[in-house]
Amino acid sequence: MLSFMNDYSEGACVEILKLLEDTNTMQHAGYGMDSICEEAKAYIKKELENELAEIHFLTGGTQTNKTVIAAALRPYEAVIAVDTGHIHVHETGAIENSGHKVITVKGVAGKMLPEAIDKVVEEHTDEHMVKPAMVYISNSTELGTIYTKQELEAISRKCKEHGLILFLDGARLGSALMACDNDIKMRDLAQLCDIFYIGGTKNGALLGEAVIILQDRLKENFRYYIKQNGGMLAKGWILGIQFLGLFQEGAFYRLAEHANRCADILRKGLKELGIPMLVETTTNQIFPIFSNELLEDLEKEVKMSIWERVDRESTAVRMVTSWNTKEEDVEKLLFLLEDLRLQKEKS
Amino acid sequence: MLSFMNDYSEGACVEILKLLEDTNTMQHAGYGMDSICEEAKAYIKKELENELAEIHFLTGGTQTNKTVIAAALRPYEAVIAVDTGHIHVHETGAIENSGHKVITVKGVAGKMLPEAIDKVVEEHTDEHMVKPAMVYISNSTELGTIYTKQELEAISRKCKEHGLILFLDGARLGSALMACDNDIKMRDLAQLCDIFYIGGTKNGALLGEAVIILQDRLKENFRYYIKQNGGMLAKGWILGIQFLGLFQEGAFYRLAEHANRCADILRKGLKELGIPMLVETTTNQIFPIFSNELLEDLEKEVKMSIWERVDRESTAVRMVTSWNTKEEDVEKLLFLLEDLRLQKEKS
Amino acid sequence: MLSFMNDYSEGACVEILKLLEDTNTMQHAGYGMDSICEEAKAYIKKELENELAEIHFLTGGTQTNKTVIAAALRPYEAVIAVDTGHIHVHETGAIENSGHKVITVKGVAGKMLPEAIDKVVEEHTDEHMVKPAMVYISNSTELGTIYTKQELEAISRKCKEHGLILFLDGARLGSALMACDNDIKMRDLAQLCDIFYIGGTKNGALLGEAVIILQDRLKENFRYYIKQNGGMLAKGWILGIQFLGLFQEGAFYRLAEHANRCADILRKGLKELGIPMLVETTTNQIFPIFSNELLEDLEKEVKMSIWERVDRESTAVRMVTSWNTKEEDVEKLLFLLEDLRLQKEKS
Amino acid sequence: MLSFMNDYSEGACVEILKLLEDTNTMQHAGYGMDSICEEAKAYIKKELENELAEIHFLTGGTQTNKTVIAAALRPYEAVIAVDTGHIHVHETGAIENSGHKVITVKGVAGKMLPEAIDKVVEEHTDEHMVKPAMVYISNSTELGTIYTKQELEAISRKCKEHGLILFLDGARLGSALMACDNDIKMRDLAQLCDIFYIGGTKNGALLGEAVIILQDRLKENFRYYIKQNGGMLAKGWILGIQFLGLFQEGAFYRLAEHANRCADILRKGLKELGIPMLVETTTNQIFPIFSNELLEDLEKEVKMSIWERVDRESTAVRMVTSWNTKEEDVEKLLFLLEDLRLQKEKS
Repeated sequence: MLSFMNDYSEGACVEILKLLEDTNTMQHAGYGMDSICEEAKAYIKKELENELAEIHFLTGGTQTNKTVIAAALRPYEAVIAVDTGHIHVHETGAIENSGHKVITVKGVAGKMLPEAIDKVVEEHTDEHMVKPAMVYISNSTELGTIYTKQELEAISRKCKEHGLILFLDGARLGSALMACDNDIKMRDLAQLCDIFYIGGTKNGALLGEAVIILQDRLKENFRYYIKQNGGMLAKGWILGIQFLGLFQEGAFYRLAEHANRCADILRKGLKELGIPMLVETTTNQIFPIFSNELLEDLEKEVKMSIWERVDRESTAVRMVTSWNTKEEDVEKLLFLLEDLRLQKEKS
Repeated sequence: MLSFMNDYSEGACVEILKLLEDTNTMQHAGYGMDSICEEAKAYIKKELENELAEIHFLTGGTQTNKTVIAAALRPYEAVIAVDTGHIHVHETGAIENSGHKVITVKGVAGKMLPEAIDKVVEEHTDEHMVKPAMVYISNSTELGTIYTKQELEAISRKCKEHGLILFLDGARLGSALMACDNDIKMRDLAQLCDIFYIGGTKNGALLGEAVIILQDRLKENFRYYIKQNGGMLAKGWILGIQFLGLFQEGAFYRLAEHANRCADILRKGLKELGIPMLVETTTNQIFPIFSNELLEDLEKEVKMSIWERVDRESTAVRMVTSWNTKEEDVEKLLFLLEDLRLQKEKS
Repeated sequence: MLSFMNDYSEGACVEILKLLEDTNTMQHAGYGMDSICEEAKAYIKKELENELAEIHFLTGGTQTNKTVIAAALRPYEAVIAVDTGHIHVHETGAIENSGHKVITVKGVAGKMLPEAIDKVVEEHTDEHMVKPAMVYISNSTELGTIYTKQELEAISRKCKEHGLILFLDGARLGSALMACDNDIKMRDLAQLCDIFYIGGTKNGALLGEAVIILQDRLKENFRYYIKQNGGMLAKGWILGIQFLGLFQEGAFYRLAEHANRCADILRKGLKELGIPMLVETTTNQIFPIFSNELLEDLEKEVKMSIWERVDRESTAVRMVTSWNTKEEDVEKLLFLLEDLRLQKEKS
Repeated sequence: MLSFMNDYSEGACVEILKLLEDTNTMQHAGYGMDSICEEAKAYIKKELENELAEIHFLTGGTQTNKTVIAAALRPYEAVIAVDTGHIHVHETGAIENSGHKVITVKGVAGKMLPEAIDKVVEEHTDEHMVKPAMVYISNSTELGTIYTKQELEAISRKCKEHGLILFLDGARLGSALMACDNDIKMRDLAQLCDIFYIGGTKNGALLGEAVIILQDRLKENFRYYIKQNGGMLAKGWILGIQFLGLFQEGAFYRLAEHANRCADILRKGLKELGIPMLVETTTNQIFPIFSNELLEDLEKEVKMSIWERVDRESTAVRMVTSWNTKEEDVEKLLFLLEDLRLQKEKS
């Protein structure tokens, strides 16, 4: 059976597996205070072109979002997110569980508009309401779209203007940065965001997200938050290995590029078959709309996520390519789709 | 200066003041375990026609909402409210601060539609999302509207169907129950809700809300929650006095009726002056839309709340009558409005 | 039946009752933004000899402790208290519920020793442990003892040395300040503490505690915390009335002096009867140790709290005098005790 | 340099590394719903001799303790632990951060006495205090000691008697079960505890703890808690691999036995050298007391943890052996100690 279910169905890239083996019997300092983590951080800092950035490795996305937001906000402060934002819909209320309101605004193709930030700030005027203190965006977004540099700059300016922290969720940052129409560089993020993270889990690591802290105030005592939120691994170098593997020789970019290339082939094929999209993307997430009839047949041979009912007769699904997707599997999927369509035409 | 700012600008009705004086030097048990609280509860139970209801007196609305929701929900459970709901917009994230997500749905004139509940339940399918466990509604609503018995029954059925707790915020319950078009009785609430509260603060008490618990599971250890959330007064009988004063001889209804009568006169007058309403209400909250020009003049002589900009030229305001509003002040306001209009026509 | 149960069994002093009546039909701004609160604050500031102090009125002790600590600490920070401290034993985990650990040290007669602070700071060395950030003390303490100025200065110095916030719980501050052996003035507290509160509930008010914030950082957005924690009354001037009544003409000191005088008579009488004390106090809380036999008889005619079993044959109780205790009741109690002893000797 | 620092300084046992490689390119279901996790659970259930146990894999100890306690307790409920308990001292207030008080009792050699439970229950009588609802113990304890079956049965009975949940932290369970004087079997834990966990991190896994839920009420919606607390890995099978590796062919026991054997040799050697112990242990943690002079020399060649100052002249340290400790390193340490002593005698 073919799977375009997600980008976290398989293990790790060769670089990471090799490091795991090579370092297995060495002795390391605990809790992320080891030399492998240091080395990995040095490689990332080079990418950031920022020596003052503080870097921490955490286990997963929800863990990271929860820890960052708990560290950044006072109890009465809230975070602004689009209605499709991961922290709003897919983290079992982890942010609220740490005491903070998520204020939602309507996203446009999954993206935050600067005007939406103004409106939220204007509406929250006094102590009977929460105080917006952070803007949360994802790149690529939960709908597979990406921000342009100009868009990100506009949001960054807006945040500075209102004294808001800009936090970028980079669970799928690799795919965003390697998209054909992307004009953002890693170093731009270090200049435009106050804090962001580079996702390992969805780009070829076994687990792990690298939090990059730029704003000085947020650096303070961050390890306390990691520990308190249960994100500090005793064998912290395991996380260091993931990012050393990804950044020592550029695997991070190579893997994302591969995922995007597979997505591009799939996208092109779907277009040629005349299949409409729920949203136009250039990253490794694709949202084709299938007739329910076609979908029923397709599901027998392909794993993917049902995204939302579009109307009575059709449904949008999410297909995801990964660092490990086989191009031939993309071809198989396209053949299958063509085949199913031909059968339909005949009947 | 005239004030239609709110219904909590003045002290307490005579019954309450008298009880305060009469009992001032008596000795009472602490923390709400006194005989005055018992007596007040007995009067309320009579209204509820329910001897098994458990009643607690808390200090204010946010305190009550926070305590009830903390007591009712498990950490991963969420409460559904309309987008104008008090817990969503005007409690400084108190619900989120106690760890729970408020899931919002679009309200219709401030009211929850049963279909909206279905939709939320359908969308929250697994452990990556919070689990809806409670429906929060207000009666009268934050927009001054009221639920009909049929509407409340439909919501109640929907909650039972989905296993959701129905919690009714009655901060302005008096005004709702005394509205000309109301067909709900106190005893209906005891049958249709799992938990609700009767507001004292906005209906002639110095402070205090009476929480009525119907569902057995919610009765368990509720006093622990009151204490932990800082709502247990050492001199608890002060709260008992408020509700004894309100329910011993029906002041609760008399005061609400008075507020509504004043609102009716005001509403009628505004209509005769051709002033449109943001939303049609029959309770003590009125939302007229004034031209900005008129509003500017009006604000020099009348206190009220600016509610929202309707368009470039006009603004909706909130005017509230209370248990202590003087009918002559309503007349003065109407004269003033007429006068301002005449001046405008002349110029 | 005589009652020496506590100091919150009766209503309010005449000044407060009179203000309640006189202002009952006036219109006040909501949520503590009224002129009565302002006036009350001005009187308190005069006592503090500090114009820059920020003052807020909250409803009760647990509410106040919870709100202050939530406002002062970051999630990983903890508060140090003695093992008899109110926040540790008698607030249903309200502090922990807001996310903070209470680190306990052994108290000496209910008081914190400066050395204990050193020890806690030394032991908490890294991010695997909470970080001590506040010292919580009560004056008078939960055991009725008081701090000398020298003791308070030593603790204050220790806090400054370690960068800890000093928070003094003054639920029974009146009695402490009026104790015969007290050498602390209200203005000293404003110089030695970062934040403290003046208790109204236990010194003749219906309810209410006045939080005094000295440290600038703690002043920031404090009203958000009050609201979020459910402590902001809609009719906030009711709290203002309590403190205007207490401080306009010195009722605060007069009432506490009365309670102490009654306690002094009782203490003297108990000593003459040869009854030992669990702890020596000079405030309105007394902890006599009775034989169980005597206690059994006593309990038939006197209400008081059982404090702790001392040994097989004797038990310590807590007797509390209040602003409203009748001296004749103290005499009656002493007669009764003498009488019971005589009967015993006969039999 | 020799290291007896801890048992989490090196990677994973061969079984785990092999499984990682063998399954690396296979496609797995996400979030722990995969077949490897199922297989691992089946092996563990066999050990437990309990088919109804529910098993979940989490990333680390603090994560696990926090999640279990959040899932088990209502907001006003507290957990009882000994004063050396990990949740009390070494988790940065993670339990309090999730809203719960940790009630501490004096431990005896790191162990909880049944009488201590009685005392806590007796003292917590009403809603002004938290309600004890869980007993937390560790086996082996934080001081390296173990519970006998009789001791564990006594605690288990006490918990049932008082309606308390018994939660056993098994971060070092392997070493406890393989201690020479242990008489507890894995299946006993399934009968005596309501919930416990089997530690992987400190017994040869890269990361991971296996939570075993026996009490039905605790099974309900546990995955919501894992997700909300940030403990649900997208690549959940990575955790499954750890436990499959440990339990498929008994590596769990073999590794622990090795660690204990090394500790036994070390213990025996230390005794022969006449070095006293802070506490007598039979597991992989040893707490020798060295003169400060000797310690200073020792620290130049051996890594270990300073535990506590014993008196002016001597200090207790913690030495830990692991699944990967080399016996020759133990011998080297003993030679070194002997050598240092000889030098001392000469001088």
